[in-house]
Amino acid sequence: MIYVSNFNNLGKSIPAGVSEIYGIDMRCRQAVIDILRSVYEDFGFDPLHTPILEHAETFNGHHGEGEKLLFKIQDSLGVELVNRYDLTVPLARFIATHPDISRPFKRYQIEPVFRDDKPDLGHFREFTQCDGDVIGDSNPTSDAEVINIAHMGLTRLGFQEFIIRVNHRGIIKAIAAKANVFDKEGVLSVQRALDFSDKVTKSGIDGIRQDLESYGAQQSVIDVILEMIMIDGKTALEKLEQIENTLKGIDVGEEAIAEMRAILNLLPTEVLKKVSIDLTLARGADYYTGFILEGIILSVPVGAVLGGGRYDNLVGKFCEHNEPAVGMAFGLERIMVALSMSNLLTSLPSKQRALIIARDTTRLQENMQAIKSLRSDRKSIDFILSNTLDAVSYATERGFDFVVEIINGGLYETILTENYDMKNLIISQLSVKINEKM
Amino acid sequence: MIYVSNFNNLGKSIPAGVSEIYGIDMRCRQAVIDILRSVYEDFGFDPLHTPILEHAETFNGHHGEGEKLLFKIQDSLGVELVNRYDLTVPLARFIATHPDISRPFKRYQIEPVFRDDKPDLGHFREFTQCDGDVIGDSNPTSDAEVINIAHMGLTRLGFQEFIIRVNHRGIIKAIAAKANVFDKEGVLSVQRALDFSDKVTKSGIDGIRQDLESYGAQQSVIDVILEMIMIDGKTALEKLEQIENTLKGIDVGEEAIAEMRAILNLLPTEVLKKVSIDLTLARGADYYTGFILEGIILSVPVGAVLGGGRYDNLVGKFCEHNEPAVGMAFGLERIMVALSMSNLLTSLPSKQRALIIARDTTRLQENMQAIKSLRSDRKSIDFILSNTLDAVSYATERGFDFVVEIINGGLYETILTENYDMKNLIISQLSVKINEKM
Repeated sequence: MIYVSNFNNLGKSIPAGVSEIYGIDMRCRQAVIDILRSVYEDFGFDPLHTPILEHAETFNGHHGEGEKLLFKIQDSLGVELVNRYDLTVPLARFIATHPDISRPFKRYQIEPVFRDDKPDLGHFREFTQCDGDVIGDSNPTSDAEVINIAHMGLTRLGFQEFIIRVNHRGIIKAIAAKANVFDKEGVLSVQRALDFSDKVTKSGIDGIRQDLESYGAQQSVIDVILEMIMIDGKTALEKLEQIENTLKGIDVGEEAIAEMRAILNLLPTEVLKKVSIDLTLARGADYYTGFILEGIILSVPVGAVLGGGRYDNLVGKFCEHNEPAVGMAFGLERIMVALSMSNLLTSLPSKQRALIIARDTTRLQENMQAIKSLRSDRKSIDFILSNTLDAVSYATERGFDFVVEIINGGLYETILTENYDMKNLIISQLSVKINEKM
Repeated sequence: MIYVSNFNNLGKSIPAGVSEIYGIDMRCRQAVIDILRSVYEDFGFDPLHTPILEHAETFNGHHGEGEKLLFKIQDSLGVELVNRYDLTVPLARFIATHPDISRPFKRYQIEPVFRDDKPDLGHFREFTQCDGDVIGDSNPTSDAEVINIAHMGLTRLGFQEFIIRVNHRGIIKAIAAKANVFDKEGVLSVQRALDFSDKVTKSGIDGIRQDLESYGAQQSVIDVILEMIMIDGKTALEKLEQIENTLKGIDVGEEAIAEMRAILNLLPTEVLKKVSIDLTLARGADYYTGFILEGIILSVPVGAVLGGGRYDNLVGKFCEHNEPAVGMAFGLERIMVALSMSNLLTSLPSKQRALIIARDTTRLQENMQAIKSLRSDRKSIDFILSNTLDAVSYATERGFDFVVEIINGGLYETILTENYDMKNLIISQLSVKINEKM
């Protein structure tokens, strides 16, 4: 069960924009977190915990408008603290605090973050981020590894029909240059127009043109955007070649395309098949400097379930020196929705769970001893003493796979799900152990 | 690596009283959390997530002096929030918010809590609690299960020499009654004197008497305490019989002793062996009403690594009706210290971790493809392209078990730990897969 807040009865409710998760839903969420952890671990990343409480100073000047969303706390020492806004600033701060840690520094972190956003926008004010980043390596191998992590993550979660959209901030700059836009603000407006052209409601090239016009983009920019987004190719590498031909002679573009080609060339075949170059992919954050990526589950309209890219200038804002960096984050809340909409929640790894109810106190100690020794073999068994409990409705509500009732020393079973292979083993071991003691 | 805060250089440091944990230490911590989760799961408890942000109103009036330690936040909606102080109040609040949830309600929750305590006392201001509780069952089976959970938790963590100390608030009341103390404040002072007598520095009965005298306890109370703490027995049940004889005729004592006997009688033999009745065990929290417990690792002077008990009046403070409840919490920070002092950290479940370094770009794509397919079989492999990295010092700092360097297509291994069984498998699979592609 996932509970969101109501707005009445303060003392008994949770605040707006936060959630409570219980039972089977929490178990699914934990299974997803375990999978994401296993992926980062298998890629050799080290786990990092940083505190939720950070100095307000740490977050000042790094999130622009986002700073308004900081939850501020004045502690009893008179120090200004915040509940952290994200895991990226704490990562850069960690690097600054521990300058001697070896590079490349590869860490993952799956922990909650906080934003005092308007809850009516459907935004959570407390949610979990699942970040993985590599600091101190500018090789395209690290960019390729980020794509590999995205691929393995989505695969292990059970998704089959997904696309990893990639683009490069340098290609976006080159598109702007092709439309004779060179200043920072202008490039940003081209980036936003590209992003917008991915979200237009009208179909066909004329429809997109109309929408871009009413969006307010310059005519020359619209022409270039339409030319670029019509480029297609059988594979990502073929499409990249078309893009290269169209942007020939623009330095920043040639560099970006060479980088992108190096990255794609390092991908295993099965990963490359899922990768699609998408020039309308822009990503919001200011700090990206190179390759960017997003993961989309086909036929599940929840938006990107992961995102990231290269950001070579962020660490420098915290340290005296600058460092290359590339990383990504899985979006836990969206992944949960996408798994649910794809009917994949039941495919997540789960343990069979038995409910054993003693209806009377006959040989109670022996029963409890037998159950404890079964649990020592890693079996999940709830035990309850009750002569009134409605076994089936209780076990159904709590998601047990089967129920065994002990009545006058006899065992009576009820099957509740298709996931009950272990039942006979538990019942026979239980009988043996109970009888042993008689 | 576990980092605690320093007090200078605000923007680059973490606040006082919080911690950062990285790499092998975080992996150990995660292994411990996984073990505690597995124990609660095997006892059929359901996982619960509640938000860190709660309404300030929820925490008002439940922690007495503790309320001064709340981290208060005024959100952008003008609502008073707090970072939760513990997991017990949110549990009671959850029960009040969702009154129709089935009983017995068994949940566990392993999440951070916050207290704006003086960091110079060595207290953390942000730390993780690992609570498990049963709401709505007054049977001694649930008290026994709590002891079973404590036993299985400490056993799975690898501890062998431990004691589960138990006592009963009703027995403490009876001891007070024996000293003719009946009012609430008086009983509390006897409880504190019992607790104190566990912490006296002088040895022998005369030493304890002297210490209790300078502590300020009444002479009649001291006499009773000394009589009680001299009671011994070969087993917990034998000791309980002695206590019963000494407290004969005091109603509250007879009831408590009957309850305690019922609980002990339900414990499996191997658990009962580890249980010791300790009349000096008092536990601080006001809300305990019956049986209380604490877990101690012998020869590791870190204090209790777990604690809990029955608290039958807490839920009633949130709902219209009252409900029986019993629960416990593992102390994660102390468990980490106790494991470290007992040299048990290396016995925690861990995966072998390989570092593969390519020294040049020869067949780089094929190498990365081979490594990705090894990872798909759940192997933990970090891959780095570098011709300068000092392999051994880097791999040692990050705790890898072995290193494979790829130089001109050849594989060169370095063993770093005793945990490298998987090396030959990885190397042979890597050679095959690299050669397949040549």
